[in-house]
Amino acid sequence: MADGSSGKGDVPGRRSAVAAVPELVEQARAGRPRAVGRLISLVEDSSPALREVMAALSPHTGRAQVVGLTGAPGVGKSTSTSALVAELRRRDRRVGVLAVDPSSPFSGGALLGDRIRMSEHATDPDVFIRSMAARGHLGGLAWATPQALRVLDAAGFDVIIVETVGVGQSEVEISRLADTTVVLLAPGMGDGIQAAKAGLLEIGDVYVINKADRDGADQVRRDLRSMLAMAERPEGAWRPPVLKTVASQGEGAADLVDALDQHRAHAEASTELARRRTRRARDEIEAIALTALRERWGSLGDGDRLDSLAASVAAGEADPYTAADALLAHVT
Amino acid sequence: MADGSSGKGDVPGRRSAVAAVPELVEQARAGRPRAVGRLISLVEDSSPALREVMAALSPHTGRAQVVGLTGAPGVGKSTSTSALVAELRRRDRRVGVLAVDPSSPFSGGALLGDRIRMSEHATDPDVFIRSMAARGHLGGLAWATPQALRVLDAAGFDVIIVETVGVGQSEVEISRLADTTVVLLAPGMGDGIQAAKAGLLEIGDVYVINKADRDGADQVRRDLRSMLAMAERPEGAWRPPVLKTVASQGEGAADLVDALDQHRAHAEASTELARRRTRRARDEIEAIALTALRERWGSLGDGDRLDSLAASVAAGEADPYTAADALLAHVT
Repeated sequence: MADGSSGKGDVPGRRSAVAAVPELVEQARAGRPRAVGRLISLVEDSSPALREVMAALSPHTGRAQVVGLTGAPGVGKSTSTSALVAELRRRDRRVGVLAVDPSSPFSGGALLGDRIRMSEHATDPDVFIRSMAARGHLGGLAWATPQALRVLDAAGFDVIIVETVGVGQSEVEISRLADTTVVLLAPGMGDGIQAAKAGLLEIGDVYVINKADRDGADQVRRDLRSMLAMAERPEGAWRPPVLKTVASQGEGAADLVDALDQHRAHAEASTELARRRTRRARDEIEAIALTALRERWGSLGDGDRLDSLAASVAAGEADPYTAADALLAHVT
Repeated sequence: MADGSSGKGDVPGRRSAVAAVPELVEQARAGRPRAVGRLISLVEDSSPALREVMAALSPHTGRAQVVGLTGAPGVGKSTSTSALVAELRRRDRRVGVLAVDPSSPFSGGALLGDRIRMSEHATDPDVFIRSMAARGHLGGLAWATPQALRVLDAAGFDVIIVETVGVGQSEVEISRLADTTVVLLAPGMGDGIQAAKAGLLEIGDVYVINKADRDGADQVRRDLRSMLAMAERPEGAWRPPVLKTVASQGEGAADLVDALDQHRAHAEASTELARRRTRRARDEIEAIALTALRERWGSLGDGDRLDSLAASVAAGEADPYTAADALLAHVT
């Protein structure tokens, strides 16, 4: 992949924006953190050059294990990520971390606390840590995260941890992105019923009770196990283990990495990994297509077509289906 | 609105599905709970009759105050909703409640605990309670919830409470749906930094520290107030109050209703209410348009066009942008 010779570079007016892409891609594949960081910035900025970047990266993807790590605020996600990174490095694996904040258009990136906790890995060239704000509404996480994963995958990271705050939709989205989803809980953060309400019982491949040195850890584990046992799973399906960790001490991190490896092996041996990756690609394609359509919706007609339709609907002058028809008539 | 005379009813093959719509709409507007429930079922089932339902309801919407109520698992959302309903009934307002589970394609609806807690209102004809599962991925909540709100609004409920589990994307989505968003916190569920990480500081119009009889309630309130004070707000903008409640005792419910009324008055006097409702309509139109496009994507070509594109992308044979182009070429 030589520099400047990409066939797509010769679109007039786009050349200047994309001139550096082949070189950046080459450097990222050679493991240079600055090039990786710049490619992810292109994703965050929705750069037009992404089209070329993704075309160049695609053939080099599919090797990394994508691990989603999620749980309610306060369970210790950042500390757990840090312990997991340390254990993976002990096993000589290159690790990428994406800390995705699905909710905040406001703070835009990880808070200071996260950065401080992760600073022990800051000087390790085989650890790449990046916080991303998932902007926008529909498709925010679905649009940017798989493309950032694609960058890290092509850059040769063995394991990519996607850490996200919160429960609810963002956790479901993470579980759709990941090869293996780790759900963190902690004593005192709510019982098994709360986990069920938060939709946590459906998405985990590995459950971790963090802060396991606190009172109630065994009770949370028992509750969780009994609720997980109620789910119907087909013969031969993966049965999510429930581990205990004290991430702040690194306790349990080795067991967690072992469980991740076991899940990966199980998913590869069955059709599960291929199924998940096809679903991830499906979400990614849809999100890209939707973004393209939105650009057309926003730029069609005089002013903003969608806004004027929305004002009519809000005023009760039109119903939303008729408005949607009018919107689609403009693009189809 | 007489029965059977709708202009849209005469599409061949759709007539039988929609024959009852004008009658249902009429009964729902007269406040009959069964008709309201059946219309919401049509929303949950994505019925083709919705097009006609929404056209009939649209002129009768815009009166209800939509209150979003959200917070992490364990803060007492169901109990708070119940206390709020009791106080609103004391003031003789008709109340609709939608309990939205944004994460669970699995449990499908509220858990038993919620139903039991709400049963004190079960026999009140001026309280309508419904749990909804927001199915699907992109646009799940955005698609169904505004349409269910439209049903309750046209049916003459004065206040509609949308209660949702979780933090993260689902809370942001609720705040986009609501006229007034109430964020619940509780002592021991994490401090101000956790609230900031969960994106809670941007979305609340009213904050409530529930379980205020527990240790630490005043500390959480102080933390929250000082973090809220850091946000820049324009002159004359609404400043979110931080209330304390003990929902299980009904304590603080009157203050909460007062705060909801104040926020409503403020939003009506400024352009804020119109702005929010236009945004809600915008999301709703987009979600309906997207759903229509997905049906085309899923049904085009031999087999599922999107699935075969996704398999190519997952295998590294195509990049997602090229795949999105191919998808859009089929519908545009």
